[in-house]
Formats: sequence, structure tokens, C-alpha cells
Amino acid sequence: MRLSRYFLPILRETPKEAEIVSHRLMLRAGMIRQEAAGIYAWLPLGLRVLNKVCDVVRAEQDRAGAIEILMPTIQAADLWRESGRYEAYGKEMLRLKDRHERELLYGPTAEEVVTEIFRASTRSYKDLPKNLYQISWKFRDEVRPRFGTMRSREFLMKDGYSFDIDQAAARHSYNKVFVSYLRTFERLGLRAIPMRADTGPIGGDLSHEFIILAKTGESEVFCDQAYLDMPVPPPSVDFDDVAGLQGVVDAWTSHYAATDEMHDEAVFAEVPEASRLSARGIEVGHIFYFGTKYSTPMKAVVTGPDGSERPVHMGSYGIGPSRLVAATIEASHDEAGIIWPDAIAPFDVALINLKVGDGACDTACAEIQAALETAGLSVLYDDRDERPGAKFATADLIGLPWQVIVGPKGLAEGKIELKRRASGERETLDPVDLPARIRRL
Amino acid sequence: MRLSRYFLPILRETPKEAEIVSHRLMLRAGMIRQEAAGIYAWLPLGLRVLNKVCDVVRAEQDRAGAIEILMPTIQAADLWRESGRYEAYGKEMLRLKDRHERELLYGPTAEEVVTEIFRASTRSYKDLPKNLYQISWKFRDEVRPRFGTMRSREFLMKDGYSFDIDQAAARHSYNKVFVSYLRTFERLGLRAIPMRADTGPIGGDLSHEFIILAKTGESEVFCDQAYLDMPVPPPSVDFDDVAGLQGVVDAWTSHYAATDEMHDEAVFAEVPEASRLSARGIEVGHIFYFGTKYSTPMKAVVTGPDGSERPVHMGSYGIGPSRLVAATIEASHDEAGIIWPDAIAPFDVALINLKVGDGACDTACAEIQAALETAGLSVLYDDRDERPGAKFATADLIGLPWQVIVGPKGLAEGKIELKRRASGERETLDPVDLPARIRRL
Repeated sequence: MRLSRYFLPILRETPKEAEIVSHRLMLRAGMIRQEAAGIYAWLPLGLRVLNKVCDVVRAEQDRAGAIEILMPTIQAADLWRESGRYEAYGKEMLRLKDRHERELLYGPTAEEVVTEIFRASTRSYKDLPKNLYQISWKFRDEVRPRFGTMRSREFLMKDGYSFDIDQAAARHSYNKVFVSYLRTFERLGLRAIPMRADTGPIGGDLSHEFIILAKTGESEVFCDQAYLDMPVPPPSVDFDDVAGLQGVVDAWTSHYAATDEMHDEAVFAEVPEASRLSARGIEVGHIFYFGTKYSTPMKAVVTGPDGSERPVHMGSYGIGPSRLVAATIEASHDEAGIIWPDAIAPFDVALINLKVGDGACDTACAEIQAALETAGLSVLYDDRDERPGAKFATADLIGLPWQVIVGPKGLAEGKIELKRRASGERETLDPVDLPARIRRL
Repeated sequence: MRLSRYFLPILRETPKEAEIVSHRLMLRAGMIRQEAAGIYAWLPLGLRVLNKVCDVVRAEQDRAGAIEILMPTIQAADLWRESGRYEAYGKEMLRLKDRHERELLYGPTAEEVVTEIFRASTRSYKDLPKNLYQISWKFRDEVRPRFGTMRSREFLMKDGYSFDIDQAAARHSYNKVFVSYLRTFERLGLRAIPMRADTGPIGGDLSHEFIILAKTGESEVFCDQAYLDMPVPPPSVDFDDVAGLQGVVDAWTSHYAATDEMHDEAVFAEVPEASRLSARGIEVGHIFYFGTKYSTPMKAVVTGPDGSERPVHMGSYGIGPSRLVAATIEASHDEAGIIWPDAIAPFDVALINLKVGDGACDTACAEIQAALETAGLSVLYDDRDERPGAKFATADLIGLPWQVIVGPKGLAEGKIELKRRASGERETLDPVDLPARIRRL
């Protein structure tokens, strides 16, 4: 993509309203634009990152056997009356009426709709287990939305829902998602630590928040350092292996890890001092088993092996891609701008032409772009008529993993420069060696 | 994908509320489920088709140089006051208020938001032309929603918006989209005919509806048969070639073609009788040049080469993927069910095991599934314990392009059966020849 034809509205000034670094950088890098309080448009660069996050989330859901659907954003109030949540939900639910004065709402979550879909079609334990998920826009009418897409009113959420015949089966479904989330965050370049979360009136131990560590995190967290280099299961992990998955989950919950809310200083004190880590964290995923909380009132029942009907056991599982984009920036940036992990970078390479209009530079850049794209790499080619300093600043700000710098001096010797954004390391090489060099990482 | 693990809630009964064949078939094939009047959930099979349609739409937009963004579903009423449309829009606009009583709306379209995004960043004619598009959910509060996803209240729309310095440049932007739409429909397996549409108070001839012919179409259309086999430009078409694109558009508007609304019987009578075609049609795309209608009141101005400011010339361009799924079924079905064009089929192959539990059949099916998937084909494997008749009926209903039928008799001779859904043609072949045979088409 040539930058002259792209739409990348970089801001020179740091926007005053942005309180946290990810919000500032997303605005400055032309990734998003606020259209109303807590409501953002995703501009081309931001949308590419968001889509890459979704691709990873989707691939790992599919690998774990979950099946994708897409529920509507607008839901009927009557369905929420069946579960008893319509009145209970409070002001965060955006309620509305259509032209016939029928009560509707913009879904903040979809337990009711998915339970309706399930109960309309599924009759027998033989059709279980099922895990249905969607990646779709939700709305929560936060009283004071801020922090950009970290806590926006309209936000993208992958929400999945599992259906099982009993609690033991539901636990396996829960474990599948637990492991799929470990893999998802690993692929996104993030180390997320599962921490026990409050299960409220349901009780039990089947609720975890996945937390990434970041200096600017929203809450204090306490955990054992052991989590920082615990191995994540490989792609070949067998999601049908009940005992095997339980073993992974046991290992990943064997050490201390708690958010402020669930923290127990006395238990934490038992962790060897050198292993104790207290830091700030950002919640990037939440999984929850809630038994028959919805299936009983909404009559989502199946026939068991004995012929009798029983309500299904359910769980729900969330990851917020629009929040993850911001959280990744909180965890990966420097003074100059964003540092994208390779997996979700909007483009792989920033190709910088230091002298647009110079025949040799223009030709070399066109050839390099073609060669990199042929090698399967995506390139944002800065072909604007700007001074080098502005181009370097833009490249650092938008944080593509690699910068390829092409100038007349180097070209005279048949060389171009390659810079790794994260480390700042530079090397000089022959243009023909570029694709192999970048692929090597 | 194994059907036993999938979520395909086939309906045995024809739903009474469905008035048109696409709505009936989408419900029966478990593609969608109605959650409220005119509001549908997309179930796994339907979502796969919808995503394939979007993939084609997106690829052709990108090829034509349009740039993807994503605007929010919820928009501020104040922005629509700037254009004067907030009061004018009427009851089809879903209006709502948030917890602070601020007026919002669920966007039925996005001219105002995209104009706001453009004017916030673009200052010079040097940054033009631009075409920004999104594929996103819209809401129109139809008084009597019906016909399933053909005319739903919540619907998916690709809406694009072009920005140019003057009318001549805007015409080229219009032509780019015109040609990209020809290519899009061709790839979707549809023959769409551009018909002049009413331009209202703007005037001029720069508005076209793209219409596909279907017996069950919503409106009467009249055109020259010449359109039925007019060639569509190849992928290599040069979208920067102003004269070349104008030539394509001229050719595709040189013969008579009009909807009921714009029909002129006297002009139609001049078409040679053998070429006159009157039929029923479904609108699947609409493109429109509207000059400075929004840029003037909303002050979306750029500096021209002479240094003076002027409002940009805009156009908007829509294709409805959720409508296209239904329209394709209207144009391609038979008594037994849907007949998907290869490009948007939810899976390429229905693999039918006639005797689940039979060692030879199970092994052969597993091998065939693996071989087809290795060859890049997607497979829905009917591994359910059902009688053959039910499996054949399901396969015909959901309309995958190929059926591979594996039974003990054939296998005893090393053979399986291949059926082409569209023609009903069958052939017997060795399983190892399958991938090459299917790919050959």
C-alpha cells in the first residue's frame, strides 16, 4: 500500500482528552477517531490491527471446537424478561423503542439470545457438547466512558457460550476455552495470567480473569513469577483429551495469582519472596461457568440418557478485541510510539523512500515493495514528498515491526538499511536479501 | 467439519411466516433464526455464506483502490442535524437516548459520519481522490419487515464514499465503483444489470441500481438482452485508466435497461423485439453521485491548486451482503433446496457416509475428508447416524456444490459416487481421483 493513496490521519499534537498512553497513541497514529463519547470509528490502520486480533481469536476458537455464529446487536426486551435480567441490568443497558413502541435493547452480552437459539433446536444429550461463539459489537452505556477503546461504550467482543449435560462435562468445556485463551494470548504476543475471579452467587471455582501485566494497568494484581515463563500448550494440543486438558488447567492454576478484589495477603505471603510479583494488570479475558442460571428459567432442556429432561449446564467466555488492541499498546510502546508484536502489526514493513522523485530510489522502492509482497509480507510504502525526519517519526509512531530505509547514498553502494522497531537495531544489506532476512525472525 | 459436531438446526416443516422462497430455504436450512421482527441471528451455515460474500465484496473494493474503515453503529444526532437529515429522515431511523439523555441513533447509512472523518483530516486536493468504505450492520425501522434477510431491519451493508476535487474527478471515482460492482457480482455468480436510477433533486445521470433477474423479484424491470452476455472486465483492469473505465461504463449503459420507476415504454419499443426482455428483478447494489450535498453544509472543504477552498464532490455506493445471500437463493434454487454458486457456497463438498459404523465406510470418509481438505476444499461430513434418505435430503436442501456419496457396495469395488448439485449429474470414481476431479471445474 502506498501511503500517498492510503488514509492515515496522523495527529501532530497529543490530544488533551486522552488520559492513557494507548488512547493517546491510537489517536495520534490515526487508528481511531472519536465520534461520540465512548464511541469510535476505526480508521484503516486501526481496523487492520483489530482484524488481525480477531483472526487469531477466531482461529483458536475454531481449533478448540467452538462454532461461530452471529447474533443481532438489537435484542428483544422480552427475552431478557425471561431470564429476569431486563430490570436487573441497570443503566448500562441501552434501552430503546421501535416505531411500534416495542421494547428493544442494544445487547451488552448475549446469554439470553444464545439460550433461545439453543433451546429452539436442541433436544438430546447426544447433540452435546456445543460451544457457540460470535465476534460482534456490544454496547454498555458507561456513565463516564474514557481510556479510548480500553473502555468504550460500543466495543467489539468475542463471546462464547457452552452447553453441556452436566457439571463434569461443563468443566471440560470450560477447560477447552481456558486452554484456547492461553494459546490466543500467546499468539497475540501477550503473556496473560489466569486469576481466580469472583463467582458471586453461583459459587465454585470456575471463573477466571486473564490478566496481562502493564505499568499503566487498571488494577493491582499479585502473582507468582512462575507464571511468566510457564509453557503454553502447542497447536497440536488435543482438546478432546479430558485428563490432559485438566492437567494443563491445574498447572496454570497451581501458583498464586489474584486481582486486588480476590487478593489474600496471608496466602500470598507463603509464596517464596523472590517469586512474589505485585504489579498492575489489565483484564483481557474472562471465563465463567454458571450452571443452570439461564437454562432453568428459560427452559433450555435436553433429554438425558435416561429419557428425562434436564436443564443444560452453561458457561460464557469473553475476549474483547477492541480492548486488546489498546491493552497491547499499553504493554508495548516507547517514547516514540507503538511497538506492534509481529502477529497483529497492521503491516509488516514500513518502506521509507528518503528521496521521492529520485529515479534510483523510486525504482528500488517499487522493486522492494513487490519482492516483499511476493514473499507474503505486507508493506506500507511511504512515498510522500516529506523530509526524512517526518517519515522516521511516522514510522516509529505507527510501530510496524520493520523499517526499510532507502536513500541515494546507500543505493550508490547497492545497500539499503533495515531497522527493527522494537530493539532499534539497524543493519545494512543488499535489497535482494531483504525478504529472507525478515522472514528469518 | 463433522456434522455431528456442527450446529445445523434443519427445520422439517416449512415455516408459515416465510412468504418468499429464499426466506423459507434459509430458515429450513438452518442458516438464520428470527430473534425479533426483521432481526435475525446468523447460524453457522448462514454466517459462512455471508462471510464469503463479504470476502468477494472486500477484495473487489480493495482492487479498485477503496480503503476499508469501520464506523460505529451508534451515531450522534447532532451530526445529522448538520446535514439537515435528522428531522427529514422519518420513522425508519431508530432514534434513542443514552443515560444522560443525549440523542443518538442507530445508523441507517453513514454519509454524515464519513464526512466528519474526512473533514477532520483532509485539507488539500493533493490528498484526493479518496474512497472510504466499510462493511457494517445498519438498522432501518421498516414499518412491516418481511422477506427474511432480503428486507430485514438490522442488515449488513457495504457502504463506500468517494471524495474528489471536482465533478470530472468524481465521475472517475464513480466509474471505478461501477466497474468494481460488475466484477463483484460476476464473481458471486450473479449477472447484475446496471439500470439508471432516479437522482432526485441532484439531477444528472450518475446514479445506477444493479439488478439481478429472478422470477420472484420485487419489481418489474425492462432491458435489452444484450446485457445477459456482455463481458465483465478481467481482474487486470486498470482502475487508473480514466478513458478505459469510461469506455467500460459507456458500453454497460449503451443499451436500454430500466426499473419500473424509470421505464419509458416508447424508448423500450425502439429495442429490436427479439432483444426486449421484461422480467422481475432484485436490486443488489446502488451507486450515486451527489456532488456537494453533504460537503457544503458540513464544511468538508479542501484547498484547490489555486489555493482557494472548495467543498469536495462526493458519491456513495452500497451493496448489501445480507440481502445478496437471499437474492442469490431467489436466483438459484430448485424444489429440493438451495443451489449455491461455487464462490459463496458455505462448504465445497457434502461428504455423505451411507453406513456410519461400518469400518470401511468410516475409514474411507475420514481419508476423503483429509484429502479434500489438503487440496484446499472445505468439507461438511455427514457422520450422523441417519438413514440415507434423510442425508440426501439435507445435502440437497443446504445446496453445497458437490456431494460425495460413500457406501459399502461401491467401496467393495473401490468406488464412490460424485454428484453435482446444480445439474444432478452423477459419476462413479476412485476416491483418489476426487480432489483433481472437483478442482477441474
